Amino acid sequence: MTSTLENSRIAVSVGYDGSGFQGWQVQPGMRTVQHEIEKAFGLLCASEPPRIHGSGRTDTGVHARGQVFHIDPTRDFSPQRWQDALNGVLPEDIRVFSVRKVAADFHARFDAVKKQYRYYIFHAPVMPPELRGTRHHVRKSLNRVAMREAAAILQGTHDFLSFSANRGKPEQSTERTLSRMELTEQGPELCLIAEADGFMYKMVRQLAGALMRVGLGELAPADILKLLEQPERNHLAPTAPAQALFLWQVSYPEWKSNERI
Amino acid sequence: MTSTLENSRIAVSVGYDGSGFQGWQVQPGMRTVQHEIEKAFGLLCASEPPRIHGSGRTDTGVHARGQVFHIDPTRDFSPQRWQDALNGVLPEDIRVFSVRKVAADFHARFDAVKKQYRYYIFHAPVMPPELRGTRHHVRKSLNRVAMREAAAILQGTHDFLSFSANRGKPEQSTERTLSRMELTEQGPELCLIAEADGFMYKMVRQLAGALMRVGLGELAPADILKLLEQPERNHLAPTAPAQALFLWQVSYPEWKSNERI
Repeated sequence: MTSTLENSRIAVSVGYDGSGFQGWQVQPGMRTVQHEIEKAFGLLCASEPPRIHGSGRTDTGVHARGQVFHIDPTRDFSPQRWQDALNGVLPEDIRVFSVRKVAADFHARFDAVKKQYRYYIFHAPVMPPELRGTRHHVRKSLNRVAMREAAAILQGTHDFLSFSANRGKPEQSTERTLSRMELTEQGPELCLIAEADGFMYKMVRQLAGALMRVGLGELAPADILKLLEQPERNHLAPTAPAQALFLWQVSYPEWKSNERI
Repeated sequence: MTSTLENSRIAVSVGYDGSGFQGWQVQPGMRTVQHEIEKAFGLLCASEPPRIHGSGRTDTGVHARGQVFHIDPTRDFSPQRWQDALNGVLPEDIRVFSVRKVAADFHARFDAVKKQYRYYIFHAPVMPPELRGTRHHVRKSLNRVAMREAAAILQGTHDFLSFSANRGKPEQSTERTLSRMELTEQGPELCLIAEADGFMYKMVRQLAGALMRVGLGELAPADILKLLEQPERNHLAPTAPAQALFLWQVSYPEWKSNERI
């Protein structure tokens, strides 16, 4: 990686509460995360809102704890000053966790080597109401042993066609490496952790939906294996609700770890 | 305790997300928790909304995980049916956790022997934005050793006049027994747990405010001791923000434990 004297490129790690947004990507007339962040840079740089480049989109209602974007701002602030200035002008449902200077050819999307998503399930007869914006409530009994078995089957390199909503482009590969697919449990709080080199459109929510069907006994772990071995273009995977999904972390080769909280 | 054949009294444990309410108590023209619950009973009993009797009020913005009220409904449902019916008609920011039949002279307020409140602090430079409705964000370093020392001083039977906003009624006792005042810690999540036979108006938020001042080094644990030993009617305790406070549990002699989640 080379860095020129003129390089002002920074990579920014942000969290957002997805409830108030029509997703990440700029769309005319919609309140989106990208649009709010671009407005903030425009304000701080006294310019037209510049373009920022995210690691990828997130859907309406999906939250983030560590979405990453890059930008070449026209002002040369220190990382700490950028963080403070951005948090000063951003709406309270978007927060900047960290800012770092990166090489002029760093790209938030193309350089990402791994993404981690977390899907939060509240597994109890009644859910505390203040959690309804960030958890998916499951009243019925979930067989966590079967869910773990199915999660282990999903781990690894497979054709995930059966778990993708992107069925219109047969020329694109639907092979991905799911390096981690895990169920953690803390009392009524269940969390599905999915890590991969990349995810297709709605893939995490379809994986979560399939694992919940396994937990409810509607699918067997063997059915999951079959969906991987004989990928079905027209498989109608249930898509789990958006409000329980968090883009948790995006990893880059140069960043040994994301020092998020 | 006696129970007559005509006794239909039930005690109900509810949770609510305080953000959408002007507190617990019915006030004309305001959206309050009590009003919403009374409307639900009116709907289910096909009657005028009947009066419910809470264990006490909570202020605007304060949440509950185990507020308790009693009522003598005009319909004789089983506890499970009451729970399901109420959760069917209540708005989603109020949930019924449990319903039990109680004696005809059970009183949610007068029979309560202990209340537990929890005050949640997020202690980190930046707070994940989806937590802003349920946590108080503290950026600066908090000395938790000093906070624990001060919490231990507060525990026990004392005149809590210095920590009460109710200064207008000198005839009422300001002595309370704080059976538990504890700081727990899990990463950036701090929680102040306060248990007492009763709390005065804004007392928990003033205790939390004082303990945070100790954590910030603005007060010493010895100052807390002095405020207890020489109670100050005009002490201006800082009142910690409402959105981080939860009424967690109300205990009654007959109930061995509240089987909340």
